[in-house]
Amino acid sequence: MKKGLLVVISGPSGAGKGSIYRQVIDRTGMKRSVSVTTRQPRPGEVDGVDYYFRTEEQYQQMIAAGEFLETAAVYRNYYGTPKAPVFENLDNGYDVLFEVDVHGARSIKKQYPDAVEIFIMPPSFEELENRLRGRGTESESSLRTRLSSAMNELGKYERFDYIVFNDDLEEAVEKVIAIINAEKCKIKNNMSMINSLLGKK
Amino acid sequence: MKKGLLVVISGPSGAGKGSIYRQVIDRTGMKRSVSVTTRQPRPGEVDGVDYYFRTEEQYQQMIAAGEFLETAAVYRNYYGTPKAPVFENLDNGYDVLFEVDVHGARSIKKQYPDAVEIFIMPPSFEELENRLRGRGTESESSLRTRLSSAMNELGKYERFDYIVFNDDLEEAVEKVIAIINAEKCKIKNNMSMINSLLGKK
Repeated sequence: MKKGLLVVISGPSGAGKGSIYRQVIDRTGMKRSVSVTTRQPRPGEVDGVDYYFRTEEQYQQMIAAGEFLETAAVYRNYYGTPKAPVFENLDNGYDVLFEVDVHGARSIKKQYPDAVEIFIMPPSFEELENRLRGRGTESESSLRTRLSSAMNELGKYERFDYIVFNDDLEEAVEKVIAIINAEKCKIKNNMSMINSLLGKK
Repeated sequence: MKKGLLVVISGPSGAGKGSIYRQVIDRTGMKRSVSVTTRQPRPGEVDGVDYYFRTEEQYQQMIAAGEFLETAAVYRNYYGTPKAPVFENLDNGYDVLFEVDVHGARSIKKQYPDAVEIFIMPPSFEELENRLRGRGTESESSLRTRLSSAMNELGKYERFDYIVFNDDLEEAVEKVIAIINAEKCKIKNNMSMINSLLGKK
């Protein structure tokens, strides 16, 4: 059984990683990872589908047991990616796609060095600023903070394997899919086929 | 100026690397490399377009001067890839595609470690045997030699970056193009853009 590929899409807020993520999931049928959260379910959300809903106590126990690939606190709630279902998918040959922030990407790479990590970047900081302003939800100071952390995050490019400049959504999605298809052709991801052709076990 | 990519397609005789090479050149507009040869021009062949035609003495001088990326002797004639025009294309931002045998691929990688090398492999040795037989030009002993060198070449997989199983020509061509597009997204191939965004020179 050929192991699945773990692919991480990351980058600054406003880079458009969410749109790319959804398009790539739709077109490739890759598995998405279901996060664990301590926040309350919203109407219609199903445990195990939208999130695994857990109490804060349960969540802390999972942290202590090392059950997360990455975990983050957002406004008093925790969100995290549980290892077990991800590793099960990979072992069964399914490719898994993540969309996480730069801290999450770093944590995943530490725990799973074979993860393929893609940094999504707007074509320029001016464009990033325009997009964030366009949302109309950012105060001037929060916008400054986001821009300066985007700069800081880009400065950590060497932690990533690839960078995709999201100038045009369609092109960016195609580049991410090309990266995934290319990774499947890497020698290290074809060892079982090569060994079987060479008559080795 | 972003440097071009040097991509090498290689693999055993009968793997279909020639067909893939031509399709990829047609679809991507990548530059092909023009070989130097000591063989006589055939009617219609133009010096500098089909080949650079050189005398054996000139060829030996080029070898001595280290002017080749790879060189091989085939039936008393020499064929080689000259460095200068390839490096000029790369420096001018053009991507260059090669189709060479496994020895040539090794020689290119030694002299230009950034070369992206793709091993083209038939889906099985049975299929390779069928294809070679289908040509109708191989004696039984030459066929045995080709099959055993194919096995030997595949055994050197670790010298390559990628492997593409050529089961279906269209799919194989798409995989090679995906590899090329993915390589263009590698962090190391985007340092000038990243540094310019970060305000570094």
